[in-house]
Amino acid sequence: LFERAVAKRGPYQVRAFEPNLPAFDAFPMALWSRIAARQWRRSNGSNMAYGELAGYAPLRRAVARYLSTARGVKCDVEQVFIVSGAHEAFTIAANLVADPGDRAWVESPGPFGVRNAVGAAGLELVPVPVDDQGLMVSEGHRRAPDPKVIVVTPSRQHPLCVTMGLNRRLELLEAAERSKSWIIEDDYDSEFRYVGRPLPALQGLDTTGRVIYVGTFSKVLFPALRLGYVVAPPSLVVPFARAIAAFSRGAATPLQAVIASFIEEGHFTAHIRRMRKLYKERHDLLIEEAEKQLTGLLDVLPVDSGMHAMGWLPDGMAGAEVSKKAALVGISAPSLSDYCLEPYAREGLLLGFTCVPPKEMARSVGKLREVLETANN
Amino acid sequence: LFERAVAKRGPYQVRAFEPNLPAFDAFPMALWSRIAARQWRRSNGSNMAYGELAGYAPLRRAVARYLSTARGVKCDVEQVFIVSGAHEAFTIAANLVADPGDRAWVESPGPFGVRNAVGAAGLELVPVPVDDQGLMVSEGHRRAPDPKVIVVTPSRQHPLCVTMGLNRRLELLEAAERSKSWIIEDDYDSEFRYVGRPLPALQGLDTTGRVIYVGTFSKVLFPALRLGYVVAPPSLVVPFARAIAAFSRGAATPLQAVIASFIEEGHFTAHIRRMRKLYKERHDLLIEEAEKQLTGLLDVLPVDSGMHAMGWLPDGMAGAEVSKKAALVGISAPSLSDYCLEPYAREGLLLGFTCVPPKEMARSVGKLREVLETANN
Repeated sequence: LFERAVAKRGPYQVRAFEPNLPAFDAFPMALWSRIAARQWRRSNGSNMAYGELAGYAPLRRAVARYLSTARGVKCDVEQVFIVSGAHEAFTIAANLVADPGDRAWVESPGPFGVRNAVGAAGLELVPVPVDDQGLMVSEGHRRAPDPKVIVVTPSRQHPLCVTMGLNRRLELLEAAERSKSWIIEDDYDSEFRYVGRPLPALQGLDTTGRVIYVGTFSKVLFPALRLGYVVAPPSLVVPFARAIAAFSRGAATPLQAVIASFIEEGHFTAHIRRMRKLYKERHDLLIEEAEKQLTGLLDVLPVDSGMHAMGWLPDGMAGAEVSKKAALVGISAPSLSDYCLEPYAREGLLLGFTCVPPKEMARSVGKLREVLETANN
Repeated sequence: LFERAVAKRGPYQVRAFEPNLPAFDAFPMALWSRIAARQWRRSNGSNMAYGELAGYAPLRRAVARYLSTARGVKCDVEQVFIVSGAHEAFTIAANLVADPGDRAWVESPGPFGVRNAVGAAGLELVPVPVDDQGLMVSEGHRRAPDPKVIVVTPSRQHPLCVTMGLNRRLELLEAAERSKSWIIEDDYDSEFRYVGRPLPALQGLDTTGRVIYVGTFSKVLFPALRLGYVVAPPSLVVPFARAIAAFSRGAATPLQAVIASFIEEGHFTAHIRRMRKLYKERHDLLIEEAEKQLTGLLDVLPVDSGMHAMGWLPDGMAGAEVSKKAALVGISAPSLSDYCLEPYAREGLLLGFTCVPPKEMARSVGKLREVLETANN
């Protein structure tokens, strides 16, 4: 990543199958721009000065309401902090609750953003494998019975797409309570569930105040906003505010104000509803094209939710190699191995379907087919 | 600060004499809003996706050109990083170049933002007194000969308003080179010089690559943007990019894009020119009103540059107490003692003049007079 930052030239290009990117072509930019213009017109010293460290108050309220209704999060508005991206939330949380040398359970495979942040805070990463219920609590316990931090993606395990069921959730909360661990719940894209209703957040089950809930606007709006939020457990509210004061002094107000209006006026839930429908269509189209073009080359499994599907490679084919070749023809299909801290039983690719316009799906799958055919030889 | 964040209710109110706040009433918001609307209209996957970690490329280029022309900074565009506020730059820089327990020279009195960030990174703060040339290098050397970090405001010492002359600058650079220290140059408001030309940045004199230059858009544009920049010395370019990847994953693109256009189209330097004239008028008005109303109560000294003046209190009067009473009547006049890590010879108040509209100056100075008269009894 850092090498890309240093070396990259020219504007960023969205590539087919890049995971976690929303449908930029379907974002209501005219509406957004009107709300933004109205915010600027209303600007005065109150919202041009330093903002509140904990975040723009109307947005904190809107997020608290939204999380309570849509995600089953139990919180008072005082527990909600707006941060410059979920990554900053992970950084602050890890630095706040742990000391260098403390141990952190991280899913393997698992998301690398939060893992990097926790690692940068000096924690020792203990990889914990994932089964069809998500993070294997018993195996974590066997490897490190005393984690200070447990990082988990319960609503939709990243990148394996499995959902943590109720029993595993209760087991995890009990384990955290026993070992006095802090759980960082990375709830990054659970708005997009195509079958049944979204599962409530783990945080809603927590009765002992050990869950630090982290969400982001990168998936439901767009990543360039660099805005996310934290719901701190009551005991961490004052320490979290203190940490924001020390670390970053809060997030930019203007974009927070636009999002607050976008939510308050009902556009946010309407947009999520529209995207859920659109992403389901793109998902189905990917599965259809994969059946047509990739049979025997890549086993792309349908998913119930989220923004990417897993494509499983035939035995003996290395994901990293395929991924590298795909990049050369403008396709982003990250290798599952990049998400693993220890070897995983199978090799696979992540295929983000949400950012691929329907008219480009067949051609993009075709490009991937060519790459796989070459790699197969 | 953190208590304010937790406890505060209702919208923020700008108060007379609050230091470091620009003239919100004079910001070209209609122009800014038009540029912002154009940016949104042009939005697509390229600038809605995750931005470059080092910052939006056109803004990095614009900042590099501006700093070279206006501040005498010697840098390649690769050395420029856009961050979510100068505070984040301090946090990343301190964590990058030092380990917990290392020592940092900080000016006393001195700015507390950077001091908090360096302290939060685990460094031991060594207060170094300030004379009419700024940070007293020889005294710093006596107290701690081996600082890992030296924090300094050479262009305009904050909050004492003195400028570090050439000899002291060379002494500082030599001391840093001898002790292999990193200098963090906090160049926060030197654009606003009312007498003569702005003094070039210390960074421009550095031949050994030990200066980490930090600037902000909070003063020349407005604080709610939460955007600043760093010029890393060549040896720190890759480590800095790596640290941004680990800490925050970069700043929001949309506001960066607006600033880039604002600079490229010439509005930025025009705005600074206009504000320089306006701030000079407000400065002169403050001095005039202080002479009329505060003689014998507060000795307000004219300044050559910057956004606040110092008001010196009569012997025996405590700045902290006056400041608290002023707050009760809606006046923000921070006590110099808040900026000190060790007692300072005199008690005084900071008086920001840039955010006070001319028609309110006489009345605001009048309120301060009443507070001082009461405190005197």
